[in-house]
Formats: sequence, C-alpha cells, structure tokens
Amino acid sequence: MLEQRRSDGSLRHLITLADLSRAEIQSLLDHSARYVSDAGARPPSNRSLNGITIANMFTEPSTRTRVSFELAGRRLGADVLNIEVQLSSRAKGESMLDTIRTLEAMHIDVLVIRDSEPGVIEEVARDVAPHVSVLSGGEAHVSHPTQGLLDALTITQRKGADFSRLTVALVGDIRHSRVARSAYEVLTALGVGQLRLIGPAEMMPPPEEFPGCRRFHAPEDGLAQADVVMMLRIQKERMLEASIPDGAEYFARFGLTAPRLKLAKADAIVMHPGPMNRGIEISSEVADGPQSVIRAQVRNGVAVRMAVLETVARPRRLGV
Amino acid sequence: MLEQRRSDGSLRHLITLADLSRAEIQSLLDHSARYVSDAGARPPSNRSLNGITIANMFTEPSTRTRVSFELAGRRLGADVLNIEVQLSSRAKGESMLDTIRTLEAMHIDVLVIRDSEPGVIEEVARDVAPHVSVLSGGEAHVSHPTQGLLDALTITQRKGADFSRLTVALVGDIRHSRVARSAYEVLTALGVGQLRLIGPAEMMPPPEEFPGCRRFHAPEDGLAQADVVMMLRIQKERMLEASIPDGAEYFARFGLTAPRLKLAKADAIVMHPGPMNRGIEISSEVADGPQSVIRAQVRNGVAVRMAVLETVARPRRLGV
Amino acid sequence: MLEQRRSDGSLRHLITLADLSRAEIQSLLDHSARYVSDAGARPPSNRSLNGITIANMFTEPSTRTRVSFELAGRRLGADVLNIEVQLSSRAKGESMLDTIRTLEAMHIDVLVIRDSEPGVIEEVARDVAPHVSVLSGGEAHVSHPTQGLLDALTITQRKGADFSRLTVALVGDIRHSRVARSAYEVLTALGVGQLRLIGPAEMMPPPEEFPGCRRFHAPEDGLAQADVVMMLRIQKERMLEASIPDGAEYFARFGLTAPRLKLAKADAIVMHPGPMNRGIEISSEVADGPQSVIRAQVRNGVAVRMAVLETVARPRRLGV
Repeated sequence: MLEQRRSDGSLRHLITLADLSRAEIQSLLDHSARYVSDAGARPPSNRSLNGITIANMFTEPSTRTRVSFELAGRRLGADVLNIEVQLSSRAKGESMLDTIRTLEAMHIDVLVIRDSEPGVIEEVARDVAPHVSVLSGGEAHVSHPTQGLLDALTITQRKGADFSRLTVALVGDIRHSRVARSAYEVLTALGVGQLRLIGPAEMMPPPEEFPGCRRFHAPEDGLAQADVVMMLRIQKERMLEASIPDGAEYFARFGLTAPRLKLAKADAIVMHPGPMNRGIEISSEVADGPQSVIRAQVRNGVAVRMAVLETVARPRRLGV
Repeated sequence: MLEQRRSDGSLRHLITLADLSRAEIQSLLDHSARYVSDAGARPPSNRSLNGITIANMFTEPSTRTRVSFELAGRRLGADVLNIEVQLSSRAKGESMLDTIRTLEAMHIDVLVIRDSEPGVIEEVARDVAPHVSVLSGGEAHVSHPTQGLLDALTITQRKGADFSRLTVALVGDIRHSRVARSAYEVLTALGVGQLRLIGPAEMMPPPEEFPGCRRFHAPEDGLAQADVVMMLRIQKERMLEASIPDGAEYFARFGLTAPRLKLAKADAIVMHPGPMNRGIEISSEVADGPQSVIRAQVRNGVAVRMAVLETVARPRRLGV
Repeated sequence: MLEQRRSDGSLRHLITLADLSRAEIQSLLDHSARYVSDAGARPPSNRSLNGITIANMFTEPSTRTRVSFELAGRRLGADVLNIEVQLSSRAKGESMLDTIRTLEAMHIDVLVIRDSEPGVIEEVARDVAPHVSVLSGGEAHVSHPTQGLLDALTITQRKGADFSRLTVALVGDIRHSRVARSAYEVLTALGVGQLRLIGPAEMMPPPEEFPGCRRFHAPEDGLAQADVVMMLRIQKERMLEASIPDGAEYFARFGLTAPRLKLAKADAIVMHPGPMNRGIEISSEVADGPQSVIRAQVRNGVAVRMAVLETVARPRRLGV
C-alpha cells in the first residue's frame, strides 16, 4: 500500500482513509470545522494557499465533487485548473501518466483525480515528483475519502463526537459503492458503535469486506433504532443485476420513505451523497424533510476539502 | 409572477424586465454607464464583489453571453464558475433543481442561467435559498433581460435619454425572439415613441403580444424614418416554417442592406444581438458600416452585467 | 507577411518566428530565463499583468499548450478565459472572426489561438483592434512559435548560447510538423552549426523548405555526432501514407532507442514536444533516461509563455 505521509509524518496524499489513525482523522475533522459556516452565511476564506496550483482531473463526469474542490481551492486563494481528460490529449493517445508528468513539470502542487478504474490514482501518486500531492476525488468502487470525512463531520455536528454510542445504517448498493467503503473506514476509525449494511443480496459486498458489520436484506430489519441512515445512490444497471426490474420496485423494497424512517430513532438523521434519484432510493418527503442533513453534507464537503488541501499543501509553503 | 425584489425593495433576481419601473431601469442604466469604457481603452475594474461566487449554468451553447457574464464578474473581483450542465451530473440523472440545491449549499451567491425551456429559470428562483440571486442569461423565446438593458444603454449613448422622440424598428423573427421581447419591455418602460415590428406573417408574435406596436410585413414599409433598426438573428428552421426556402430568399426580402437602411433616418443606428448571419439577415457592408453600433452593444453588455451583478449581490456585502 | 511589431518596433503579435531577428529571439530567451525555476521549486510569479485579460481559443484539443498558456497568464496575475469554440457559437454558425470581434469588444487583451487551418491566425491578427495581441498556440503544420522558443531555451540551458558549435537532428514526420518548422526558424536565427532532417522520404518537406539542412532517410546516418536529437510526434495516418504499416515498424526504423542514441555524442540531449507515443517514436528507456530533457521543455514552456505574454501585453500598461 502507498505511504500517504511524508517522512516527517505529515499527510502528503489522500487516496484512502484506510490507514489513517483516529487522531489523524480527528485532526482533519477539527480543521474542517473551522471552515464550516451556517447555512446561508458567507463561507470563510483566506489566502493561505496563494501561489499554490491545483489541477482537477476528472475522467468521470461530476459537478458536485469537482465544483466542491474548485471552490475549496479558490476560497484558500489557490489557482485551480480544470483538466478535461476526455476532451484533450487522451484523445490523441497520451497516457494519463504522461499528462501528469506534464502537469508536474508545469509545477502543479495538488492533483485531484477522479477515475473509474481502481488503482490508477495510487499509481499516479507513486509516480509523481516529490512536490506534488495527489487527492482522490473518487476512485471506482474503492474509495472516496473526502466524502467519508464530510460524512463523519456531518454526523459529529448532529450527534456529537462520541461515535461509540451510534448505530449507523448504510442502505443500498454497498457492493459497488466507494461512498460506503470510505464511510466504513472513517466510522470504524472513529469507533462507531454499530454499523449495519442493508440491501439486496446481490448488492452486498463480499463476505471478507466490511468486517464487523451486521447485514440485513430489508430496511424493516436494519433500520430499527438507527441514529444515522446513510442512503446510497443506485444505478439502473445494478438494479437489473439484482433482478429488480425498475425504480418503482427498488423504491418499494429499499426506498427511504417517511414510514420506514420512523423505524429509526426519532432523532435519526438522513444522509445521501448525491446526486439523488428521488422516488427510487429516497422519497422527496424524506430528502427535503427535517431529519435530512443532505444539504449540510454538501456544505461540509467544501470545508473538508479546504482542510485537506491546506493539510497537504501547507508544509511546502514553509520551504519544506 | 415571481417577485424579483427583496422586502426592502432592492433587486434580488433579474429574470424579466416586465415588472421593472422606469426608475429601476434608469438606475440600472446609470449604474452601467459607470462601467462603459471607450473602444480600445482598458475597461474599469474593482474589487467590489470580492468573496462573491457566481456560477454560470448555460444549458444552451453561448460564447457571447457566458463570457460577458464571466468577464463582468471577474472585473468586479468575484469568483466565477462555469457549470457545464450537459457534460456533468445531468447525464447521471440529477435534476437541475438538485444541482442548484447543491451549488446553493456550497454557497454560490449568484446563479446565471440560460435555458431553452420557458419557466425553468423562474422555478429555480422560487426555490433557491435566501442568499442566492438568480439572473437570466436568456430564457427560451421569453426573455433576455440583460440584452434588453444593453440595447437600451446603447440607444441612450447615441440618441440621448428621451426615448419618446424615437422610432425603433425590430426586424426579423419576432415571434421566437427573447431579444425582441426584452427590447419591447425595456423600450416601453422608457416611453419609446414608436415601436415597429417587421417580419413575415409567420414570424409575427400572436396578436395579444407586443401591444401598441405597429406591424409591417416588408422593411420597405416599416423602416421609413426609423431612428433605430434592431435586426434579429434568424434560424434556418424558422425560415422553412415561414416558407422561405433559403437564406438568399430571406436576405432578398428582409435582409438589411445599405439601400434598405437609406429608408431609415440618415443618422439611424443599426443593432444586432449577435451572432450575426451575414448575408442572411444583414449585409457585411451594414454590419461593419458607420451606422452599426453592434460592437458597442457587446462592450455595453459587460458594463450592464457588472451593474446587474453589483445590484443584486451588493446588499449582502453589508451584512443584510 | 503580417507585420508582428508595433510602429515603435515592440512585438505585438507572435505568430511566426520567421521574421524575428537574432537579437529579438535572444531577448525573449533572456526574458524567459528569469521565469525558469529548478525542477520541483515553486515557480516565480508576480502581478505584472494584473487587469489584462487573455482568451485561449483552441479549436484543436490540447492539454499541454492550453494549460501552459493558462498557467503563464495566471502566474503574471492576468485573467485567463478558455473559449471552447467547438462547443459554443461556432455550432450556431458564427464565424471565428465574429467571435473574435465579440471578444475584442469585451476588451480581451491577448488572444491565444490554436487552429488546424493554415492562415486563420494571421487573418485574425490582421483584423483585430489595435489593443489586441494575437499569439499562435500552434497553426496547422505551419508554425508553433512558443514551442520553437522553448526548444531553443532548453538547448541553451544544456549546451550554452553558442549554437554555431551544435549539430541538431530533427527526426520523424518533418513534412507535417509545425514544431519542426518553428525549430528550424529559431535555430537558424541563432546560427546553429548544422541542422539535419531524418525521416522516411514521404515525411520529408518539399525541397524548397528547410534550406541548408542535410536530409537523411535513416537515423543510423543522421544521428552521428549530434548534440541535440529532437524527436517529433508521429500520427498513425501519416505512417500509412508513408507505407509504414504500424507503430512497431515505425519504431524499428525510426524510433529513438538507447542503441540508436549512442550514435549521437555521449552528452547529446533528447527532446520531444509531447505528447509522446512511447514505443513508436521513442522508447521509454530514452524518454525517461538521463539524456532526456523532455520535462525541462515543459517547464520552460511556461517560462517562455510568461515572457511572451509580458512582452506583447506590457506596453499597453504604460498607456501606449
């Protein structure tokens, strides 16, 4: 596994949360909290990353995460470039590594990469020059570390810092979900009380993954007394693989409706990484209801990315 | 109809000019005039919108208006993001409203939207959080308010502020033109003397629209003694609907040529919202000739958008 | 031929190196050298182009050159816009000249254009208002002036300023290469000792081009005692025209391998404009080996573009 830290122990890359200690995660969450503003209030900004250049390289479409990283970088005074890999030299046969060597030679400081193929982001991180940090913006089904952090931050805001008292239910296509894997890693590191996986058998991860989690095939069983309900985005292709003919059927079996949400604790919070399929994995009543913290997740996403960017990019500002 | 103002009467959204008072329009034009520079001179810029984030969401292609808003925002020190809706999460099924809720949660201050479907921009404005302003960058055939303002500003620069003495002729496909509708609204509010519509019958708006305008089916009739000739962009599909087989035929019947322009007053000005179909709705001789103010329109467009951005975004800077 | 200078002799456009004097080229290289940083060191930046707006208009895909110009502009404090011509109003029939007149009216200071059609960039430069400078970002097979400058700068760094002692070999598809033509122009102006062209007969330029160069059809002949080996990117279509069935065959005949490189001087440097076709025109062993200066070329590219931008845009800052 790639070493994500520099020799002095500071974080250089963020590709996975799997090897981060509880203290490291807590430190990132505390750092993030300084950049959280109230809904509607102008978000904090400063010039701490002035002179730093960040390149967003997203080979899968994404408004949400790309814009979140872009805003995070700009609100710290960095320059942010968007590199559209599919529209540019990849078409001309240049490999991603050659593109990255080019960006590196132009002195990009931070590369944010989203890629649909497992392992590519780590391969890039192994290859880049010492002055470059690599951040995952989402890797295949494997990992989405800033999503994991923003989920943990959102839970902390509503439920406090003691995760050992919490029951968290992950609902949907866990097998193919990078969001679920990063949630598992961060919640486990923070000592979550109980983590439950709810979904059809075909969408459950292999037995060796998600150790320690309880598995349920119906929300009616798994949601009972949950403090946190994390819904996952479902893709039509996956439904068919699970012999679920359409969105209506999926909604009937696994969609989070107001009655189902009543199974959880009265003050349970509802999360979704977005973009939502309303009427398929979640009803609009729940998505827009008082227990939903979905907008807070988006707001926290910018704060988490500001903290991560400052963490990986700051040491070099001091001449290290 | 949507209320575009805040409770204190200040302008929050700009989606239509239809409900703006003459004083409000005049105030926007006066504000815009402060940002107009001479051709070739470096345009004014300041930092008044520092910390403000503007998102351009154009679901129809547009260099002109998108870049105009982008430059306007940057010249006031704002951050400007371009959100390519067709290339991003819309492909993944996220609805525009969910995209906008996401941007809003990330604390976008101003959303500039161009959309080909009537009503979507207003729907967004109804939905957004109180800290967000929505500006139309062009709505279907319905409205293009900043174009209306830049047209009025351009006329004022050449013909003075007393519109009651002016005869303005709109030529072309009025029925499908958002430019024509916004021109009608702004010129009517400013008390224009006479407004004429010139075009083939199939391109005339329904009789209940454009009240008070005189209608002509030949430029030979409508251009006589006009002070201002506003040409509209014609689309090939529309020509066919009007049984005009090709651009040459359209040009022969409605194209603005030098001889036709002689029918108007000797000091008449020629306008076009761009992009022009040279040799179809206008000859190059006229488009590039001494009576053309087409480049001034483009220059004024940036100034108008600076004024509009400052008007809608400024109050929040004072903590409101 | 277009006059690239203003009446006071200062450089206004940079579309070709063909008419630049040795002193002008040397001055640009000296200027560039001030913006070169060591590999991994934070590159120099300042605010000298604050208030200047640069528009990148690339009608061919290019990560490398577009991002290089974008970073160069931003590191001097300029605003940089990316205009995607294929995605915007060109689709609506607006000619490139009308787009440019629009940008010019919005007060763009510098237009960087890449285009696949010979002559278009020069045509634009003839047409634009006096306040606009036009830079080529690569013109068909004709010219790529900033590439020529960065190549010269890279050679100077490794081989010193006396080009008369140097033998430079250009290898590959010279006929279709703008890189080769600009290299020829700059190296000739700097008094290069010997310039050799190596490639299959079908990829050699017409006899009247590249006067004074020696031509070789096999690297075994042309590389002997070379100080500089400049590899060119090969395109599959061109291979077929030259009756070379595939990349493996091309590599066997013309690819730069470690044994072939041994034919050149022991301290010869290897250059490539990128993006590379590894295993076709160059082996990875050579591309990543100790004689390769390919990354330095990329780094120098930003420095050269900073110097060029400052040269063409600076006079107007003084009110000229």
